[in-house]
Amino acid sequence: MSLVVQKYGGSSVSDAAALKRVAARIVETKKAGNDVVVVVSAMGDTTDDLLDLAAQVTADPPAREMDILLTAGERVSMALLAMAVTELGVPAHAYTGQQAGLRTDNHYGKASIVGIVPERIARDVKDGSVAIIAGFQGVNELNDVTTLGRGGSDTTAVALAAAMHADVCEIYTDVDGLFSADPRIVPAARRVQSLDYEETLELAGQGAKILHLRAVEFARKYNVPLHVRSSYSELEGTWIMNTDERDMESPIITGIAHDRSQSKLSILGVPDIPGKAAKVFGKVAEVGANIDMIVQNVAASEPDKTDISFTLPHDSAAVALKAIEDMKEELQYREVTFNEKVGKLSLIGAGMRSHPGVSAKLFGALAEAGINIDMISTSEIRISVVVRIDELDKAVRAVHTAFDLDAEDTQAVVYGGTGR
Amino acid sequence: MSLVVQKYGGSSVSDAAALKRVAARIVETKKAGNDVVVVVSAMGDTTDDLLDLAAQVTADPPAREMDILLTAGERVSMALLAMAVTELGVPAHAYTGQQAGLRTDNHYGKASIVGIVPERIARDVKDGSVAIIAGFQGVNELNDVTTLGRGGSDTTAVALAAAMHADVCEIYTDVDGLFSADPRIVPAARRVQSLDYEETLELAGQGAKILHLRAVEFARKYNVPLHVRSSYSELEGTWIMNTDERDMESPIITGIAHDRSQSKLSILGVPDIPGKAAKVFGKVAEVGANIDMIVQNVAASEPDKTDISFTLPHDSAAVALKAIEDMKEELQYREVTFNEKVGKLSLIGAGMRSHPGVSAKLFGALAEAGINIDMISTSEIRISVVVRIDELDKAVRAVHTAFDLDAEDTQAVVYGGTGR
Repeated sequence: MSLVVQKYGGSSVSDAAALKRVAARIVETKKAGNDVVVVVSAMGDTTDDLLDLAAQVTADPPAREMDILLTAGERVSMALLAMAVTELGVPAHAYTGQQAGLRTDNHYGKASIVGIVPERIARDVKDGSVAIIAGFQGVNELNDVTTLGRGGSDTTAVALAAAMHADVCEIYTDVDGLFSADPRIVPAARRVQSLDYEETLELAGQGAKILHLRAVEFARKYNVPLHVRSSYSELEGTWIMNTDERDMESPIITGIAHDRSQSKLSILGVPDIPGKAAKVFGKVAEVGANIDMIVQNVAASEPDKTDISFTLPHDSAAVALKAIEDMKEELQYREVTFNEKVGKLSLIGAGMRSHPGVSAKLFGALAEAGINIDMISTSEIRISVVVRIDELDKAVRAVHTAFDLDAEDTQAVVYGGTGR
Repeated sequence: MSLVVQKYGGSSVSDAAALKRVAARIVETKKAGNDVVVVVSAMGDTTDDLLDLAAQVTADPPAREMDILLTAGERVSMALLAMAVTELGVPAHAYTGQQAGLRTDNHYGKASIVGIVPERIARDVKDGSVAIIAGFQGVNELNDVTTLGRGGSDTTAVALAAAMHADVCEIYTDVDGLFSADPRIVPAARRVQSLDYEETLELAGQGAKILHLRAVEFARKYNVPLHVRSSYSELEGTWIMNTDERDMESPIITGIAHDRSQSKLSILGVPDIPGKAAKVFGKVAEVGANIDMIVQNVAASEPDKTDISFTLPHDSAAVALKAIEDMKEELQYREVTFNEKVGKLSLIGAGMRSHPGVSAKLFGALAEAGINIDMISTSEIRISVVVRIDELDKAVRAVHTAFDLDAEDTQAVVYGGTGR
């Protein structure tokens, strides 16, 4: 008998009909001989509606009360889902994060899990019931509810799967898994059968929306196999697991992520003496901006000067720009340029480690498509480039084709590649 | 410094604007130098909406999950209210029933309070904050949330007031207090300034909707002064307290309650031998019907037979009727008659104890108005009569006038009465 942890997001439980469909799937999994633990998010737009309500009352909601408010959403969905499963003849009980033994630190709104002791859940499952747990929440040492922030329900599911030594943690969503690129941009994009945690982290970190970074990190740490799949179909989705448990013939390139959420700031003509970069990024961190890519070059025309460029999310750009401008005298740079929106493309694949020539092929494909590269950064299994935002889609399609990721024939194209 | 417990019902917190108005009132009470503990119900129609959702999922919701579902409503209102109070510059924190130390038995949906240890609330209030507590809920020995059933938020407020030795428990509603009769029926009805617990129990039990029986019983038991008042005005409402703390000159008649929710069943020609009534009411109790009034008379035309009549809520009438019909052979009665809807009028006043002649005056007033009395029952401080449902309003008006309760002149009419 296997223990399956299933996580259903808000779009999978948007109304009573959707809840019933999810209940049927849970019952099916149970009747196939598995023990089943379910983590559920708030229904559809519930969380946004609650945020709206709070905004009507105050512009500056206390964080503790905000968490109490937001956790009302999961309370509703978990109770209804337990009812729907029970209605189908399988006993089911709903549990809050507290009842599931999920303890967190005191950072309301973005709490970290400090421990999980799912005794009561384990007992209930052993007794033949389905345990349905509120995602996204835990309890701190004060006995106050906390929320885990973005990706919180995924993280809850993975944490429970880790603590209970589940055989798999199924993440249900409204698509069939992870794709080699966003199908809205690349219609020929194909579902990725499997990838390892690091590839997934790069995909997630580089703007893929399906699975949250934090949950994947947790899964990697505790070696929890993830299965990302659609709650609307019976299709296999994408498996995420340790590399050594995957097929021998891993693909070189897993997929392409893109990101439209970045702005670019360039500080030109900075005196090239030690400590300048530290000052810049110290100040930027101080105003709360998260830097993504950084590139520093000696300016060709001015040998004793340097240019520093970096990208950061749109919503941090204004404060960062202001901070840099306020430091003009101190830094003695010549000028600042600002691109409000840039596009970032990331090519990801664990196979890059052992296959040279990937970056040359990438740059060649972009050049052939007439697309100028503005910044480059790399990791062991990723190459990211910044391009003009209006050329991003074209860039993604060109690279997808260049790496033979398009889906016109079999999976061998993606998974059987040789060293290109 | 006084400790004031305030309870706001769903209609007082129906939307963000209403929540802000309530918050302003709380802050005002706090700034007047009081410690303030607030109990709040779910916003407006929230509870009905949640019940609808459950009905869409199952016709037979498990009670434990139903309580989890319903308590989502208070979670939202208490968090928003704490935010709204904080926004006005007074620190406020929201607490669940569990956090407020409200422990109950295991009867989901209609739990009884078994103890209340509001340590955390007391500490918070001592530190200068307003504590805002979810009404209607507690936690049982399994650490599962339970709801207190009808009147649960009133009961929560009174229980907290008792445990914390509050100076007053203010029950906010959408009317100015308790009235000498329903103002929709008797436009001349007047607000009652004060009454004692027993009178209130009779009023509540006899169909007055404002304050729940259970909360009043709790208040009587622990001697908690209640102040029922409007959240829409600054007017004094109605005080409910021990008789000996009221003015010497209590009124004879406090008010008139009416009830349209009763049906009447008469079993005619029952052999007048011991044990028949026990059999009837044993059976009726067995099918879950709550009997209200019972009258048994020897039938004039058949000296060895008796007639048994009783009233009970509409929604229990069908099963009770069926149960009686099934016992025809056993009881050997002649026939059963059934009035689906009857009207009940109750005249209530602690002064009845010491003032004879009240019932004569009541029956006289009804006779003068041409209204036939079908059943009569009395307690020390109440006389109830059953009349035809279509004559109920007329009866209430006639009695209200007969006892000089109409509001055309001063309160002396109501409160200074002599033995009529």
